[in-house]
This record gives sequence, C-alpha cells and structure tokens, in this order.
Amino acid sequence: MTAISSTGITLKSRPVGEPQASDFGTEVSEAGAPAAGQIQVKNSWMSVDPYMRGRMYDRESYVPPFQIGEVLTGGAVGRVTATNHPDYAVGDLVQSMAGWREAWTAPPEAVMAVKLPGNTGLPDSAFLGIAGMPGLTAYAGILRVAELKEGDTVFVSGAAGAVGSAVVQIAKIKGCTVIGSAGGAEKCAFVKELGADECIDYRAAGDYEGLLAALRAAAPKGIDVYFDNVGGDHFQAAIEVARPMARMAICGMISQYNDTEPRPGPNNVIQIVGKQLQIRGFIVSTHADMQPAFLADMSQWIASGKMKFEETVMEGVENAPAAFMGLFSGQNKGKMLVKL
Amino acid sequence: MTAISSTGITLKSRPVGEPQASDFGTEVSEAGAPAAGQIQVKNSWMSVDPYMRGRMYDRESYVPPFQIGEVLTGGAVGRVTATNHPDYAVGDLVQSMAGWREAWTAPPEAVMAVKLPGNTGLPDSAFLGIAGMPGLTAYAGILRVAELKEGDTVFVSGAAGAVGSAVVQIAKIKGCTVIGSAGGAEKCAFVKELGADECIDYRAAGDYEGLLAALRAAAPKGIDVYFDNVGGDHFQAAIEVARPMARMAICGMISQYNDTEPRPGPNNVIQIVGKQLQIRGFIVSTHADMQPAFLADMSQWIASGKMKFEETVMEGVENAPAAFMGLFSGQNKGKMLVKL
Repeated sequence: MTAISSTGITLKSRPVGEPQASDFGTEVSEAGAPAAGQIQVKNSWMSVDPYMRGRMYDRESYVPPFQIGEVLTGGAVGRVTATNHPDYAVGDLVQSMAGWREAWTAPPEAVMAVKLPGNTGLPDSAFLGIAGMPGLTAYAGILRVAELKEGDTVFVSGAAGAVGSAVVQIAKIKGCTVIGSAGGAEKCAFVKELGADECIDYRAAGDYEGLLAALRAAAPKGIDVYFDNVGGDHFQAAIEVARPMARMAICGMISQYNDTEPRPGPNNVIQIVGKQLQIRGFIVSTHADMQPAFLADMSQWIASGKMKFEETVMEGVENAPAAFMGLFSGQNKGKMLVKL
Repeated sequence: MTAISSTGITLKSRPVGEPQASDFGTEVSEAGAPAAGQIQVKNSWMSVDPYMRGRMYDRESYVPPFQIGEVLTGGAVGRVTATNHPDYAVGDLVQSMAGWREAWTAPPEAVMAVKLPGNTGLPDSAFLGIAGMPGLTAYAGILRVAELKEGDTVFVSGAAGAVGSAVVQIAKIKGCTVIGSAGGAEKCAFVKELGADECIDYRAAGDYEGLLAALRAAAPKGIDVYFDNVGGDHFQAAIEVARPMARMAICGMISQYNDTEPRPGPNNVIQIVGKQLQIRGFIVSTHADMQPAFLADMSQWIASGKMKFEETVMEGVENAPAAFMGLFSGQNKGKMLVKL
C-alpha cells in the first residue's frame, strides 16, 4: 500500500458573476496509505454540476459554502487502490463526493462513498449522470414534483443538459407531448433525437418575445407541466402559456446563477392565482426514497433502448474548471464530465 | 305579485388603473312578476370583492369579463317577494350572484341562487362573508392549499380583510403562530384582537425594506406558510423569509389588480429552488367540495366565540361603486358590504 500523488482543484476566490479560470487553483497532495477503516481510491471520473455555483457564494443554503483555499468537492467515481476497511476490496467501484481531485484516502462515510454494483452493463461514468444524481433529479422532479400525467403537454428548459435530456425521455415514455428548449441548432437536433416533439432554439429566438412566440407556436393549447432548469425568460414564458392547473417543477435556474444583482422576477406572477398554478422547487436529496424505483426503471429503460444519454468529456483534473465554466456557456450536450 | 323597481349598477367603461366613479353608471329596470319557474327577490345585501376587478378587464380568465353597459353581477342575499317556483316560498332567504342591483326576477339556476337555512343564528350578511365565499376561500386556502400544520408560523397579508381575517383565526384555532399585515394602526389592532401574535402595519413600514425588516423581526426563525392576498412586496418578502419547505397559498394580489403595465415579479424567485418552496394559486370554486366541512366547522367556531367577524357597510346601491373602490384603498375592516 503506497501513497498516490493527487492534484486537486481549489477555490482561490469566490467568483463574481461568471466564474473565471483565475478563481481556481491547484494543490498537489498525497492520498496516503489507508489507516484502519479507510480506503484509498483513484478517481476515474468527476462531475461538474450547475448547483456547485451556489456553493461558491458565501451564504447559507441547503449545502454549506465551499471554503476559500480548500479543494472543491463533488461527485466522482473511481476504483479502490488500497483498503483497510472490511467491506471494500481493491478494484471495487466507488462513488463519492470526493471529486475535484485525482485520488483520496478517507473513511468511506466521511466522503459519502458507496460501493457501486459491478454488473450493471453501464459505463462507470453513467453513475455521475443518467444513473446518478442528475438522473434521479429528472425522475423525481418530473414524476413526483411535477405530478406528470399521461397526455400532458410538457415544456422542459435546458433540454439538452444532463437533467433536461432525461426529463424529455421520461415524459415521452409516460405518453406526453414534449417541447424542449436548448441553445443552438445542434443541441435542438439532439433533443429531437431524444424524442421531443418540438425543440425551441432559444438563441435563435433572440429575446423573451421570440421565446414566447416560439413556445406559443409549439404549444398552441398551452402547457400542463414546466420543468425549469433555466429560470429567467423561460420561467416567465412558461407562466404565460401555462394552462389552468399547470404544475411547475423548479429544478434550477442556471441563467441566474451568475447574477451579481437581484433580478426582477417574472412579470406575470399574478397569473398564478387565476390559473391556479402549482410551482414547486426541489432538491434531489429530498427524494432519496425514490432511488430504488429510479434505478429499477432507469436500468430497464436504458437496456431496452428507450433512454439514451450523451456525455461531454474533458480530460484531466486541470480542465475541471473549464468543464465547470462550460456549463454556463452551454458547452455540454448531455452530462458534462471530467475524465481523470 | 307586482313588479318592483330596481336600480342596478352598470359598467360604463373599463377602468384603466384605479377604478373611478365615472366607470360606473346606473340603470333602473323592473323586477317583474315571476313567470313559471322564476322567483322575484329583493336583495338586502350585496357584496363587493377584489376579484371583480379582474372581470372588468376584457380578457379571458376563470370567469368571463363584465360587458360594457350591462349591470354588474356578484354575490347578494335577499328575500323572496314573489314566487312561481315549487321550491321557493315568499320570505325565503336566498343567496345569488344577482348582486349590484336592488331586486331581480329570474329562474334561480340562472343566477346561481340557492336557498339559505333560516335557523343558523347568523345575520343574513354573514353569508356574503365569514359563512360565504370569503370564508370558504380562507378555509380551503389555508387548510388544503397551504397544507397548514399545527405549530406552523403563518404570515397572512391583507389580514384585516374578509378573507385574511378568517385565515388569521383559522390558523390560531389550528395551533399556529400567526403574523398578519394590514394598512394602518387601527386595522392592526383589529388583527391582534382576532388573535394574531403580531401584526405588521405595512404603511408604517414604508417600503419593501421596511416591510422585510418588520417581517424578520416578527418571524426571526422564518415562516412556514404564507397566505397571499396582496402580492407585490408582500410576496417577495414572504419568499425572502420563508423556511425550507414553506408552502404559499396565493389567493389574490390586490396591490397589483390596478396595474396598467406588467410589474416585475419578486426578485428572489431563485430561492424557490434551494428552499424547495411550494407556491400554489387557487380559486375558491375549485374547492367547493369542502363546503359541508366548512359550514360545520365555521358554525361551531362562530357559536363558540372562536371566530369573530367584522363588516364595513355602505348603504344604498348607488354607493356600491364607492364600496368597491374602497377595497383598493383599504377602507374596509373585515368584509365590505352594501346594504340595500
């Protein structure tokens, strides 16, 4: 059992607005030989996710803020390289929150590590995407939070992203009409490939009025469900075209994560009353009880070809900040990942 | 059976912004002798309600718009003065949607008339307030839409109004901490008399920052439930102090009903995600199934002195527009009514 050198990415400064390369640093440390109860893991994949932007602010939230000068954390999968823990063997596939670094040594519970099944037929990286947190987010959000019903007309913003692309497909599997939105023709083509009935290229639409017109054209009778990954104009347009009793699952508002000033909200919230809208924010961890049903359904959907997934991969831990920053300029189709 | 002369109030022009006296006209007609299946009713009370402002716009909504030149409609109670209908006798107490006029002759179903029980011990006017539509609105909104639980900290805007004053008392009956808001010291004293733990005088608070500071002081640990009658700054402040998993019942937004331009929404909707807020608009008619439980509970609460109600009364149909306009300047304590 030998120590492994591990490069990690630190938060050098809290981003103001759009995160910059200069907000990140690197730190080389050692993942030492495991003491009793510890395992040593070499990460093979790490995840960058929009929610991490929130942790870069120094404020109370549902997860504590990242600390300046410390190595960031996030989802990762890797293989056990040394073990001093009775439940883990060398070679075991492990998922943890010890991402943003190449390797680590710790008690599994200290980094929320769990052993993954080795026989799923899924690539290891899938546990950071379609079969992991983003997949469960989509599943819980559209089925439970938005109370999806067969026949619903569903609007999904960020439809080419890790969560959105899963939402599109789940809604199609459940017999719904699905309208996605994404930035650019290539992403819209991808969203259509996933089965969406329509995809709005919000960049081509130009502004709010353009987005609204495109949404009205795609959903002339209005929408029953909105799954929000984007916020801003998308949220307002969704309220505008919502049918009475429409349900909205608010998963994220990536268009607003880098705001430096409070942004005026949708100018049509008064419609919440007359249309009897239900708007619900949610965080995936609240719906951890759905994990078994999610894995059962998702495995079957993937095996039967009903659920496709795409990954956008950058290589090397030193490119993790670029991968993260790419989320905000929409550089990813499907799940954004870093291969270590 | 003789005809009765009836003065009614017409909509002369659609108000732009705050309604003006010049937007209303009068029309004298006759409530004739009832034909087969008809009843003739002399209204003794009529209701003015904030929702009526919405019907003065020429737009699709959950109720059709009022038509220019026609007599307005709304809740009223009165006594049968002549009958040609087997289920109605002279002297029966009748509630209908044939308000804004002194008398009417029609088939009961054409004006949504129902016979009221004569033995409730309640004044007739109560069926337009605490024991009528506003009371059911409060009951359904706080219990079902907001999913009130014992021990919740509840914030109620418009707490001195017909709906808000009932919400305050229901929440106290259910074992909650209740913070109201109302305009002016006198109304706040009334809200405290109803049992509210705190009442914020939003006029004294001055602006949004003042309102927020007062709300933070009244609910230092945040709120679990918000019942919105007001919208605007109140809605934004409620989101700001909401605890995780807080529920909001959006009943009305009276501060926005006279807007002539779309108004920017709350600048903190991003908190819907992290706090997992549930925001639900509702209309009382959707919850008509709660009517029996509502009447049973409300009768008992009133009889036992747990539920108080106040009325602000103007006299004469010609003062109905003034009563209606008074809703927007907050001239009412409890239910605003017109005695005919």
